[in-house]
Amino acid sequence: MSKSQPVSLPLAEEPVVPCCPPLTAGELSPADAEKVAVMFKALSDPVRVRLFSKIASHPGGEACVCDIADVGVSQPTVSHHLKKLRDAGLLTSQRRGTWVYYRVAPSVVAAMSALLAPRP
Amino acid sequence: MSKSQPVSLPLAEEPVVPCCPPLTAGELSPADAEKVAVMFKALSDPVRVRLFSKIASHPGGEACVCDIADVGVSQPTVSHHLKKLRDAGLLTSQRRGTWVYYRVAPSVVAAMSALLAPRP
Repeated sequence: MSKSQPVSLPLAEEPVVPCCPPLTAGELSPADAEKVAVMFKALSDPVRVRLFSKIASHPGGEACVCDIADVGVSQPTVSHHLKKLRDAGLLTSQRRGTWVYYRVAPSVVAAMSALLAPRP
Repeated sequence: MSKSQPVSLPLAEEPVVPCCPPLTAGELSPADAEKVAVMFKALSDPVRVRLFSKIASHPGGEACVCDIADVGVSQPTVSHHLKKLRDAGLLTSQRRGTWVYYRVAPSVVAAMSALLAPRP
């Protein structure tokens, strides 16, 4: 009997569900501004930007921690930064066997891009 | 003789000059990751997000400090946050008479949006 297990991968085309209106559409409420700031804060650190771009550009759109840890900081620091990206909703993670695999949450990233869309 | 002076306003349609390739296009270099992190850090604070959205959505795309200071923090704190947004390239400013006027730098904001574009 095979030891392989079915793996549920997120759909490639998740709907874009924006948290908030575009920043150019009107004055944001304090509550919406908090949500937006948390998302952008996730990409406010150069190590997190590098980890995010490594995962986003990895073949299949998914990367194991073992694939991306060479960013010049310690493994605990890598884990700390990956947790911040995941907590902000930019990444999803899944443990499979020994390793944790990370994947970009395309709907969240598309929503961030839409926040910066020019005024219609 | 009129006291009015000609005012040079930025063109509405500046070209988008990205600093860096999209985060999904490939692994960013450390130098590019630094540049990207600085831009996103500008929007990592809720007060800065609110100030930015007030300016971006103001009629004419431009706002005087006097129009936007009601975000629940002191005037020096507003000035501090506006300076951070300007230093990161997201705003331009111009003194006219008593007041400083702020305007969104559309090319920089469009470039930030493009950084988050999905993988082709």
